Amino acid sequence: MENMADEAFVTLATDDSYSLGALVLGHSLRIVQTSRSLVILVTAGVTADMRSQLASVFDLVQEVGEINSQDEANLTILTRPELGVTLTKLQCWKLIQFQKCVFLDADTLVLRNCDELFNREELSAAPDIGWPDCFNSGVFVFKPSDETYKALVKCAKEKGSFDGGDQGLLNLFFQDWATKDISRHLSFLYNMNSNACYTYLPAFKRFGNEVKIVHFLGEMKPWMYKVSEGKVVKPHQSQYYSDHLQYWWDLFLSHVQPHQDIPSNDLGKIKLELPEERKSSVFQDHPMALNLHSRQEAWEKGQIDYMGVDCFENIRQKLDSKIYGIK
Amino acid sequence: MENMADEAFVTLATDDSYSLGALVLGHSLRIVQTSRSLVILVTAGVTADMRSQLASVFDLVQEVGEINSQDEANLTILTRPELGVTLTKLQCWKLIQFQKCVFLDADTLVLRNCDELFNREELSAAPDIGWPDCFNSGVFVFKPSDETYKALVKCAKEKGSFDGGDQGLLNLFFQDWATKDISRHLSFLYNMNSNACYTYLPAFKRFGNEVKIVHFLGEMKPWMYKVSEGKVVKPHQSQYYSDHLQYWWDLFLSHVQPHQDIPSNDLGKIKLELPEERKSSVFQDHPMALNLHSRQEAWEKGQIDYMGVDCFENIRQKLDSKIYGIK
Repeated sequence: MENMADEAFVTLATDDSYSLGALVLGHSLRIVQTSRSLVILVTAGVTADMRSQLASVFDLVQEVGEINSQDEANLTILTRPELGVTLTKLQCWKLIQFQKCVFLDADTLVLRNCDELFNREELSAAPDIGWPDCFNSGVFVFKPSDETYKALVKCAKEKGSFDGGDQGLLNLFFQDWATKDISRHLSFLYNMNSNACYTYLPAFKRFGNEVKIVHFLGEMKPWMYKVSEGKVVKPHQSQYYSDHLQYWWDLFLSHVQPHQDIPSNDLGKIKLELPEERKSSVFQDHPMALNLHSRQEAWEKGQIDYMGVDCFENIRQKLDSKIYGIK
Repeated sequence: MENMADEAFVTLATDDSYSLGALVLGHSLRIVQTSRSLVILVTAGVTADMRSQLASVFDLVQEVGEINSQDEANLTILTRPELGVTLTKLQCWKLIQFQKCVFLDADTLVLRNCDELFNREELSAAPDIGWPDCFNSGVFVFKPSDETYKALVKCAKEKGSFDGGDQGLLNLFFQDWATKDISRHLSFLYNMNSNACYTYLPAFKRFGNEVKIVHFLGEMKPWMYKVSEGKVVKPHQSQYYSDHLQYWWDLFLSHVQPHQDIPSNDLGKIKLELPEERKSSVFQDHPMALNLHSRQEAWEKGQIDYMGVDCFENIRQKLDSKIYGIK
């Protein structure tokens, strides 16, 4: 249990729905008996009730994200408000009470103990399947440091982010990732895109049972599916994807739901009431409505919802309307 | 021009249509003034007329692929006939008159001089975007060697190929590619999937103008599109993809077509007459019919034809027919 006190898995939630993901992620880390601390960064969008539940799984629930005029580093980005969301994640570098950390997006799920990640140096990450000279910023090993945080903020201010998010900025800042040190390339097994079985099925068949961390990339997050008698309904993906999605729900139903005032089959309606304008999404079937802007962002990051809003028919209509003015 | 004589770019064509790709590839290498030799491996499927045209661009047109009972290495795979196609490509290792080579699939196109690839060691390749712990075998640096060829055949016989093709076999054989030596990871710029702009558009916008080799992954090859007055018709992809596709056609029309007895707008009908059974493909609009089996293989390798046979509607119908028996 060496290093338990000064090393941590860190995640982030900006609202209560992502907090559900974080709760399941936290339990998945406990189940594989990690020896490291569990930390979650939360913003003002996470309710007090949810924070109290998060505190039952995480060793530390840390509020972040308020742009504070007393904070010199944050001040520098006040002229670039669009970088605020990116900055939220970067604040993980401020956790200087830890020597080393592994960041995991709240839409990841740990299948096997992966404490060996703490043997890697900053910045270690797995390739992004959209453009593999870049790393995917959903899972990365980092060393908290106020200095690095300030340098990241400076980089954000001066160069921005080529994708408008943390991934573009981090790839600019750690731009030697692709060429310098093979040990900083994490295996895809540590950040396996849940849709990978679509893109290279034979590789998934061969290596899929070695996956340690699955990343539910794409607009449809696990907590957005319906379940019936404990089983995920109609994932309309593949058998493989369903297994991971089902495991997420198994953990949710056994470890999270019993402590919440949510009927197991009606997650969206009770606890995660959405503003009316978001309910008019194209995703009529789904308990949680979706935002078209975030859909576009997801598409551009390669998080393609093949079965839903990104289907051929919708794309064709969009192209036709752009090219020929047809609606 | 050092090493010109003992280093070569190598490609492969198994029929006349892929030979058209190889011709354009060969011209694209001449245009960027490579100092290395150009070699093409051809099989019995390439006609004598086409070989003569290939010889006008390539320094060496080398027949390969006949399983010969005098050939001890090939003999060992006679019990695994499905590996024959894979073996065809592997025979590039038999080009031992060269010290080092770069293999390029016939559906690649060189945009900028990339002779610096010969500074890399065997086996250097770029990540496959489907499962980036594997490399894509469309572009790779290798060192011809009879010994390596025999070892590859032995590996094929004993372990097969996890994807049924050369990529699965080569990734088994060079399995330390992912972890051993960063210098053997080629940048994605040397094997840029022509659909990459779909999967991470911001990265394509940022790095796309540095691309050196584009790879037309997917079932729709450049020679399958229609052109009208020199312009590619309805690529139904993105602006970026169209630019590369248009460049392919610019080269074809200026350098290849003048030496062929093919009307510029009717490539498929004249020179590339297909058997009747292949013409009943779903690709009614396309001059070249397609084979559904190869379509499935392409899909499983991540070569997804978003706009055609792999469109959402077709996928949904297939799923419905499997799940509910609906046709």
